[in-house]
Amino acid sequence: MIQRHYSQSIQIGKVTIGGDAPIVVQSMTKTDTRDAAATIEQIRRLEECGCELVRVAVPDLKAAQSIAEIKKGINIPLVADIHFDYRLALASLEHGADALRLNPGNLRDPEHIAAVVQAAKERQTPIRIGVNAGSMPPDEGCQSSAISSTTGIVSRMVEAAMAQIRLLESLDFNLIKVSLKAFDVPTTVEAYRAIASRIPYPLHLGITESGLTLPGSIRSAIGLGILLSEGIGDTIRVSLTDTPEKEVFAAYEILKSLNLREHGPTLVSCPTCGRCEIDLISLAKKVGERLQGVSKPIKVAVMGCVVNGPGEAREADVGIAGGKGKGALFRKGKVVRTLPEEELLSALMSEIEDL
Amino acid sequence: MIQRHYSQSIQIGKVTIGGDAPIVVQSMTKTDTRDAAATIEQIRRLEECGCELVRVAVPDLKAAQSIAEIKKGINIPLVADIHFDYRLALASLEHGADALRLNPGNLRDPEHIAAVVQAAKERQTPIRIGVNAGSMPPDEGCQSSAISSTTGIVSRMVEAAMAQIRLLESLDFNLIKVSLKAFDVPTTVEAYRAIASRIPYPLHLGITESGLTLPGSIRSAIGLGILLSEGIGDTIRVSLTDTPEKEVFAAYEILKSLNLREHGPTLVSCPTCGRCEIDLISLAKKVGERLQGVSKPIKVAVMGCVVNGPGEAREADVGIAGGKGKGALFRKGKVVRTLPEEELLSALMSEIEDL
Repeated sequence: MIQRHYSQSIQIGKVTIGGDAPIVVQSMTKTDTRDAAATIEQIRRLEECGCELVRVAVPDLKAAQSIAEIKKGINIPLVADIHFDYRLALASLEHGADALRLNPGNLRDPEHIAAVVQAAKERQTPIRIGVNAGSMPPDEGCQSSAISSTTGIVSRMVEAAMAQIRLLESLDFNLIKVSLKAFDVPTTVEAYRAIASRIPYPLHLGITESGLTLPGSIRSAIGLGILLSEGIGDTIRVSLTDTPEKEVFAAYEILKSLNLREHGPTLVSCPTCGRCEIDLISLAKKVGERLQGVSKPIKVAVMGCVVNGPGEAREADVGIAGGKGKGALFRKGKVVRTLPEEELLSALMSEIEDL
Repeated sequence: MIQRHYSQSIQIGKVTIGGDAPIVVQSMTKTDTRDAAATIEQIRRLEECGCELVRVAVPDLKAAQSIAEIKKGINIPLVADIHFDYRLALASLEHGADALRLNPGNLRDPEHIAAVVQAAKERQTPIRIGVNAGSMPPDEGCQSSAISSTTGIVSRMVEAAMAQIRLLESLDFNLIKVSLKAFDVPTTVEAYRAIASRIPYPLHLGITESGLTLPGSIRSAIGLGILLSEGIGDTIRVSLTDTPEKEVFAAYEILKSLNLREHGPTLVSCPTCGRCEIDLISLAKKVGERLQGVSKPIKVAVMGCVVNGPGEAREADVGIAGGKGKGALFRKGKVVRTLPEEELLSALMSEIEDL
């Protein structure tokens, strides 16, 4: 359904980003990078829940050196996140980073960038030009009155990225990925639309500082959802003030909602209403918890009433619908068995195992 | 920024839907409608958290009669949700419902619809034609092979709505609102886009059976976010397998993300990374809890580091940024005070009270 915007693919370790490759889910560690053991443990948990690429902060030389140790313990490619000091980028490359993220807002000296590009080119290591609306290069134009308007911010974000893209291209380097993140959703959407029409490089989508789990997921889902539905975006990171595993969960829910990726089961469940005669919310939560152990990309429904529940959830592979003291087990919208309420959950789970 | 799609406004009680009116947030009760006291209590909680319109299920005559009692205890307009039996619509009108929702999938007899329209017209009570992809009228066309495709489902949904719209128009009734809900996000988006170009009536947006809190909010945010960003939609209901208060919270977060409504504080908080030296996730959660008691539409930031935190969150009215053992309090991106970590939360809250 969605016509993907053209981008030329890059390779980060074994992961392809852009072109026809599936949209890649990534996250960032929240451990102290210098603590290799803790960072490896967090990345392994991320791998288990489907994270395909991981970024680590590199605030000092010890963190850059730690990359070599971390790489030994993990299976997904690692991106070093660099701000302020280009020497940390050089050290990260030396210690095996599979890609770099450079912030053009605080890494601007052309000679420093050239040194990093030279080292990255020798290793064929991609660089993400990661613009953040909150840490942009100083505005040197004469249109400073436009800064506070969305249009002004969008054009400054795009120009910050374009300036660094042109610099990398002038150094004959094109293993480029770009991001233009803001907290404001319309600003972020406009910025990505603008850059997508100007460059052939893959785009990394995200909303910065989007907040706590639920509001942050909603904010990210809208911004990333609008862009992905227009075919824009090759890899996504949902930033949440929560565990990185939750970020990966939210990222896959976004991709699944647009039928862009399959990932584990999807739960269809009704909001309940005055028609419902069972404790549906508790039952659905229990099913949700049990499904965390299931990896098959199946659709499971938990519906409040037998009258239209199975019909309304007919796209589900298997489901249950509540009644008065008893309920129904259904497959593809057809009731196959009626059973007491207390047996519904276990009947559903054994049905799922049989699929 | 967003150019609103034209719709002619309707009035449900004191609430205007469509035209230039703000996008209305609604929810549905999950109590037994026949239990007026429990339903009133739930609606009052909904009113407190900003719900502007509430729907109740009317599965039988006793539920319809209960509307009169419920109406006495609430301040927002009430919509009666009708399936299967047109007499429940008549009884709901008689007992004071401010609007009706009719499902064209299970209420089809033109004479029955005419009787309801006649009664609604006498009271100038609006009717929502509420199509649900899972409970559509039988497909009588010869293109049944197309049913399973998205295009087929979309055109069946639109046709089901259009048939009933034409019937109401032929009865000289135009106090109409329309919804076309599905679980599949691209299907829902396509259906609303198609109907928006064909009718002048306000649209009620929703994704059906979208599931548990987090995945359901993500799914709803994408579907509703895409449509709202195109100017489509006059009222929204987020359906979650959770309390109706959570539905209202999610609805406002969607509208706030697109700058379509203001509603209480917005928390900007960073995801934390290897640069962070305080327990930011716990701190942000505590701030989030404390903000539940604040009604001012302010932006509050909780950032992991002093180095770029205040700058990255410069659009926040007030914020805190962590350091090593101590942190900073900032306003509009400028640090105004440095203080010990354990005093950050209370300093932030007193700053918020001063705003």
